[in-house]
Amino acid sequence: MFRFEILKKESRSGARLGRIHTPHGTVDTPAFMPVATQATVKSLSPGEVESLGFQMLIANAYHMYLRPGHEVIKKLGGLHEFMSWKHPITTDSGGFQALSLSKTRKIKEEGIIFQSHLDGSRHLLTPEKCVEIQESLGVDIMMCLDECPPYPSTDKYMKKSVELTTKWAGLCNNARKRPESALFGIVQGGIYPEMRRLSAEGLTEIGFDGYALGGLGIGEDPEATYDITESTLPHLPPESPRYLMGIGRPEDIVTAVHTGVDLFDCVIPTRNARNGTLFTSHGKLVIKNARYAEDGRPVDERCGCYTCRNFSRAYLRHLYMARETLVLRLLTIHNLNYYGQLMKEIRESIAQDDFPVFASRVKSLGGE
Amino acid sequence: MFRFEILKKESRSGARLGRIHTPHGTVDTPAFMPVATQATVKSLSPGEVESLGFQMLIANAYHMYLRPGHEVIKKLGGLHEFMSWKHPITTDSGGFQALSLSKTRKIKEEGIIFQSHLDGSRHLLTPEKCVEIQESLGVDIMMCLDECPPYPSTDKYMKKSVELTTKWAGLCNNARKRPESALFGIVQGGIYPEMRRLSAEGLTEIGFDGYALGGLGIGEDPEATYDITESTLPHLPPESPRYLMGIGRPEDIVTAVHTGVDLFDCVIPTRNARNGTLFTSHGKLVIKNARYAEDGRPVDERCGCYTCRNFSRAYLRHLYMARETLVLRLLTIHNLNYYGQLMKEIRESIAQDDFPVFASRVKSLGGE
Repeated sequence: MFRFEILKKESRSGARLGRIHTPHGTVDTPAFMPVATQATVKSLSPGEVESLGFQMLIANAYHMYLRPGHEVIKKLGGLHEFMSWKHPITTDSGGFQALSLSKTRKIKEEGIIFQSHLDGSRHLLTPEKCVEIQESLGVDIMMCLDECPPYPSTDKYMKKSVELTTKWAGLCNNARKRPESALFGIVQGGIYPEMRRLSAEGLTEIGFDGYALGGLGIGEDPEATYDITESTLPHLPPESPRYLMGIGRPEDIVTAVHTGVDLFDCVIPTRNARNGTLFTSHGKLVIKNARYAEDGRPVDERCGCYTCRNFSRAYLRHLYMARETLVLRLLTIHNLNYYGQLMKEIRESIAQDDFPVFASRVKSLGGE
Repeated sequence: MFRFEILKKESRSGARLGRIHTPHGTVDTPAFMPVATQATVKSLSPGEVESLGFQMLIANAYHMYLRPGHEVIKKLGGLHEFMSWKHPITTDSGGFQALSLSKTRKIKEEGIIFQSHLDGSRHLLTPEKCVEIQESLGVDIMMCLDECPPYPSTDKYMKKSVELTTKWAGLCNNARKRPESALFGIVQGGIYPEMRRLSAEGLTEIGFDGYALGGLGIGEDPEATYDITESTLPHLPPESPRYLMGIGRPEDIVTAVHTGVDLFDCVIPTRNARNGTLFTSHGKLVIKNARYAEDGRPVDERCGCYTCRNFSRAYLRHLYMARETLVLRLLTIHNLNYYGQLMKEIRESIAQDDFPVFASRVKSLGGE
């Protein structure tokens, strides 16, 4: 069953070292979840993701519902079995995707009416349906259906939206049938601290296994993300895990850890890899640049990943220019290894009660 | 240095068990070379190719010359180092690609004038240039520049073409500077046994480390391929390795081994995989078929490859329908494993002097 344990609080910051216990094993926090939207971390085998040091993935309920269908996955033994991943899985509820991927969608009291981005078929995603889908998948952490208001939104829209998200959260909680799947509430409220407080308090009153901050990283200034995270966390139960959804860059992660966030997911390491942008110990490297055409060095001489141990920048650039799919995998391995190492070092620095020093080193690199 | 050793001749057929020795290790024959046109077996890591039982790859001199450039690869330590493949490498000369990929090309006495399929730039590929490129790459087996006449061709065209290929072969041989790179001649002559004999005799007179049959599998009936292979081999030195270029299906391979062929390459296992067509112990399986949407079984219950040990038909179909690149890799692993096992069983059945029985089993499966 789901349980969150705080092992240590860092003395000069809000950073926490913890452990999430789930039916599929434990996750050391602060943790980063690679994104496996369609039941695969794009281009990687489950064994590769595991060996890069990740203990939990995040898949997407909206995508699984539309293709191949949550009933199919349930019949085949659940999402873990389906994608051959033995460790914990979180699913995003799909509310964000139902709103962002559909051309025509409508938010009603009872849920989100949307058209499939695949075949145009019409669907109604209710809080109850959302929980049913995620329980069918058999995931370890489910997310509530929420409404993610666009940035920017008016005060008035935001207030109504937060009330709806809180109402849906209550309905999600009531719809639960499967105790093995934990449920997290999602705090909304845009960049309005007061709305965030209302949302956090509403969710806390219902009571969830964990709390997420949603609706950030959607166009607002990073400073706003930081401010909202910092001002919202005190309104959430300190003993519960806190998850900052969809964030972010290494400098965003350390800043959020500093304020007490335990869990992250973001497409940045994997999507950047596929675009040829790599994280290194000396800043970003864009592999398609002509300057790497004859460069026999690895992407990062201080990196020990499979890609850096075996291939030169020149070879990776060649594969990239020749549109060879192997490059997607090799670059994804490198970037996820970077994130895996980052999270490991974050945890170590908290354990050594020296997180702020590590955090400022990461932030100075991000600014390069 | 290059050396070919025949370990055993099967008593009821022309099949031979052998071993090719090269500066990068040995290759047990009959052998199949996975195709690594652009210095990668599409979607697989070198370690995966190795673990599937392959000891030699074939890359393409034409492609390496145009991108990233053979000089670049030479500067970076050669093709083995560039693509991180420690075992033997063969390169095709690129004559076939210069003729087939270029919109405007001209065959002249001194070589092939062609336009790059990448940027339209004009190039002249001479026999000397062809050897220079392959020696720069530092490959273990180089192929002579040849002219591959289209199918069908007239007697007259064919005679001129064979004479040109023989002349070029002599020039290639004279251009050699690097003793570590063996050179194979390529027999041409279309489906005319007499032309093939002339070509084989011309090449044998010059003397090569091995002999290939080119210009087959380009539209002619498979029976014609078999007949030409069978009638040509007796005109080649029996102690030299024989390589049937670009062939083929499992039934083609066993038929050719029966007549005494030692070496193969073909895009079929890898290209079919990317198209979703899989080889199994019970015939072909097309993964995108709707009937596999809820099928929890592996592709082939008798297969022990990574893909079959970890994933269901339903999951692979899901990845295929969702255009997830991981599926290219998983299906390529399966098909190459099939070919790896096929070649292993061919060698074992020759060792046990029981090849014809094994061959007819493979042929009956191909007909299913």
